[in-house]
Amino acid sequence: MASAVELTSRLRALEGKLWTREYLMKIAEFDGATIAPENGAAARGDAMGALAGEHHELLTSADACALVAELEAAVAAGELSDPQAVAEVRTLARDQREARALPTEEVEAWSRLTCEADAVWHKAKNANDWASFEPYVDRIVETLKRHAGYMDPNRDPYDVWLDQYERGMDAAAYDRFFGAVRETVVPLVHAIGERGTQPEAPFLTAHVPDAAQRAMSFDLMKLVGLDLADTCLAFTEHPFSEGFAVGDARVATHIYEDNLLSNVYSVIHEAGHASYELGVNPAYARTCLEGGTSLGIHESQSRFFENTAGRSRAFMTPLLALLRRYAPEVYAGVSEDELYRAVNIAQPSLVRTEADELTYPLHIMIRYDIERMLFAGEATAKDIPALWAKFTKQYLGLDVPNDTLGCLQDTHWSGGSFGYFPTYALGSAYDAQYVPAMERAGIDLDAACAAGDLTPVRAWLRENIWQWGRGKDADELIQGACGAPFDATFYCDYLATKFSELYQL
Amino acid sequence: MASAVELTSRLRALEGKLWTREYLMKIAEFDGATIAPENGAAARGDAMGALAGEHHELLTSADACALVAELEAAVAAGELSDPQAVAEVRTLARDQREARALPTEEVEAWSRLTCEADAVWHKAKNANDWASFEPYVDRIVETLKRHAGYMDPNRDPYDVWLDQYERGMDAAAYDRFFGAVRETVVPLVHAIGERGTQPEAPFLTAHVPDAAQRAMSFDLMKLVGLDLADTCLAFTEHPFSEGFAVGDARVATHIYEDNLLSNVYSVIHEAGHASYELGVNPAYARTCLEGGTSLGIHESQSRFFENTAGRSRAFMTPLLALLRRYAPEVYAGVSEDELYRAVNIAQPSLVRTEADELTYPLHIMIRYDIERMLFAGEATAKDIPALWAKFTKQYLGLDVPNDTLGCLQDTHWSGGSFGYFPTYALGSAYDAQYVPAMERAGIDLDAACAAGDLTPVRAWLRENIWQWGRGKDADELIQGACGAPFDATFYCDYLATKFSELYQL
Repeated sequence: MASAVELTSRLRALEGKLWTREYLMKIAEFDGATIAPENGAAARGDAMGALAGEHHELLTSADACALVAELEAAVAAGELSDPQAVAEVRTLARDQREARALPTEEVEAWSRLTCEADAVWHKAKNANDWASFEPYVDRIVETLKRHAGYMDPNRDPYDVWLDQYERGMDAAAYDRFFGAVRETVVPLVHAIGERGTQPEAPFLTAHVPDAAQRAMSFDLMKLVGLDLADTCLAFTEHPFSEGFAVGDARVATHIYEDNLLSNVYSVIHEAGHASYELGVNPAYARTCLEGGTSLGIHESQSRFFENTAGRSRAFMTPLLALLRRYAPEVYAGVSEDELYRAVNIAQPSLVRTEADELTYPLHIMIRYDIERMLFAGEATAKDIPALWAKFTKQYLGLDVPNDTLGCLQDTHWSGGSFGYFPTYALGSAYDAQYVPAMERAGIDLDAACAAGDLTPVRAWLRENIWQWGRGKDADELIQGACGAPFDATFYCDYLATKFSELYQL
Repeated sequence: MASAVELTSRLRALEGKLWTREYLMKIAEFDGATIAPENGAAARGDAMGALAGEHHELLTSADACALVAELEAAVAAGELSDPQAVAEVRTLARDQREARALPTEEVEAWSRLTCEADAVWHKAKNANDWASFEPYVDRIVETLKRHAGYMDPNRDPYDVWLDQYERGMDAAAYDRFFGAVRETVVPLVHAIGERGTQPEAPFLTAHVPDAAQRAMSFDLMKLVGLDLADTCLAFTEHPFSEGFAVGDARVATHIYEDNLLSNVYSVIHEAGHASYELGVNPAYARTCLEGGTSLGIHESQSRFFENTAGRSRAFMTPLLALLRRYAPEVYAGVSEDELYRAVNIAQPSLVRTEADELTYPLHIMIRYDIERMLFAGEATAKDIPALWAKFTKQYLGLDVPNDTLGCLQDTHWSGGSFGYFPTYALGSAYDAQYVPAMERAGIDLDAACAAGDLTPVRAWLRENIWQWGRGKDADELIQGACGAPFDATFYCDYLATKFSELYQL
């Protein structure tokens, strides 16, 4: 039998090859989303297709399967016991099982289906034409149910997908979560509409030139704790972040000259994602443990910086100082309280990506409720527009004027991502549970925000979340960080307290 | 025996794999030179090292060698006769022979030596410390002589390297070329120093903000004929261009707020390189024929746009109009004649990269003369500072105050690039020979420049140079485009006429 040293060296060699392809894929994606010329798309597509094919082949080859089997046996026999190596074996074996789950014909058919669906969706959204997209949704849901059977024939298909996007979650857990959100947030939103006064904030739409916003963005990244030697600022249509490697995680933003705060909160949000990727244990470099563990945990980092810290009353002190530095003519006459009210305006709206902190989870709930019904066979695609209208009225109190602003607004379903949306809501809910855990660790979040120095907060996040990379699953991280399993109560209490106070309810 | 169709399909499969790695290498390089954060260098180095290793292995594997042998046999037997496929086989076979020429130990030792030399050179340049770098130069020259023996034992080593950088050139040809340049340019430079009057041009150092220069750069790329859907503008320390694929060639510039024309001519120069890469026959996509054929031909494209067209009197009309659009306060009072004189100031200087069109080839001559002596055993590294001083005095009439501004100024030798410099001078010399050929084809270069529409000029370059990619060597291109072999007379005449007139000699 091979020694632990020899096995580990073979493991790392395979991981290195996989890592190279993942790294290059990210570079190509980043390039495509930021600066690449339009006419280079075909070449990039070819190169990325080749990379993806090689990655899949490396991960699922007979040699790789034999190696993983040998590694798992060595772990089971206690012959491989280094904690990092054990975590690598667990993660790599899972990646391999998932990559092998579907027969090649299914993978190819799926790629064709979603590619076609995506093109149809783009047109349907522009033309407000649900009917043309409808058959794709049914076909995608049917296919996903079948695929779930390959992956775990003994489990409910929607649960299989929910677990794919967030390990340890299932419909029962989400039902409890969204039940609590529904009970707290829906009445709160209605109360604000009936009894709350919306602040006047003309500065929100004041003109701030591109050059000033660019310069500001770097200072903002520093303010939330990024080291500029680890990151960069790129420009793109839809802001995103991408972790490339130890020492390299990027922020891409979009500047609107008449909406400075859109850029401010995009940068802070993406800086949160980047901080997570940069905080992973450097010993995990070039292994399968690099990167973030789940969508929900990733979103919990971006939203923590954006909302929990970034939209707190305390953070208005350094934020206003920064805004005054780069847009003095606009912000000289604005007070911290006015800024605080303005960045926390809660108001029902139709489009998820523009929703505020309070109403955001209601947008997710609409999608979750519909996905649940589709997978349960209680609805088909033709029912979606009516269901969308019904839930939007019920949760947000709004009428849906058309499908473009309704059930056609998001790209996720056309790409086959069912079970993905709920993780967006989960992120903020995790955040609310981190705060008391930080307090117990002696960290004064408000003081750190007010001082414009998030060092202690970042240290806690690094210790409890970031450093573990993909080495721990979401549920393990929450248990470790908060001393208890995920509990939505913290989130509901946080929203109720913050917004009751803001709107004097 | 395999059919032509089957052989071609195996050829293209190998080329596709090589192409993917070349493309990704360029993306990673471009990313590193433009936006990548400092701390991501190690990861990028790992990924690029892996790519280079895979590329070398793919190109030189037993399978690839057998395939190339089979292809060459099929071409020789007339069984493979499609002209493009024949050109691919010729080029790929040459790439393969060169990649296989050196034993692995030599490749590794070379990589270590140049890596170390580069680090030492950086320090030596900053510290004006030739002595510390000196032993590396001797070791590098010795190694290059040995390597040349692996590549072609029957040829003079310096000729082997000159041919590597520009197919068909050797020391005898360069001696003739530089002999002619010496006879024409040295007296001309001396005459300007003695009898010429330098123009006053305070606008050269006027402040033009970064944002205005960025906006201007896009219009400038369009002015010289680039389609913005094929390119992009990035920012970097040393301007460069990189051709990625059909439909994708990038320009990277550097903006100095008090030197607008530096950015102007960097953008035009790099746009010339990009135009070449973009003009390659689209049927060559993903084959070894993509890209430019040689350094000299590539430089002839960038310098054609920068100098032949871009610094012509006629081009001042659209250029001044553009400068007035983006810096009206600076250029409103400048005339076309004043601009023409200013962008053509010829004055001896110490640093090659800052040299003007006339004195530039003298900088190259200094380096060529020294390289020639080193390879001939007529000098060793310890003689270089004195030789540098001697040739600088002789050609440029200047004293060299220190080695930082003398023989330590360029990075090429530390990277092992001996035989590379002469191609820089060759580019402009090719240009001077293109002009009468264009005229014979009925193209009025001055009219095109004055009109700010280079379409006919670009069409000629595309037809005669660009479309051939790597499918023809430099000497074949010159013969085809100009109806005669390379002849330095055109270049000497061009410089003599232009600068005698400018300085009224």
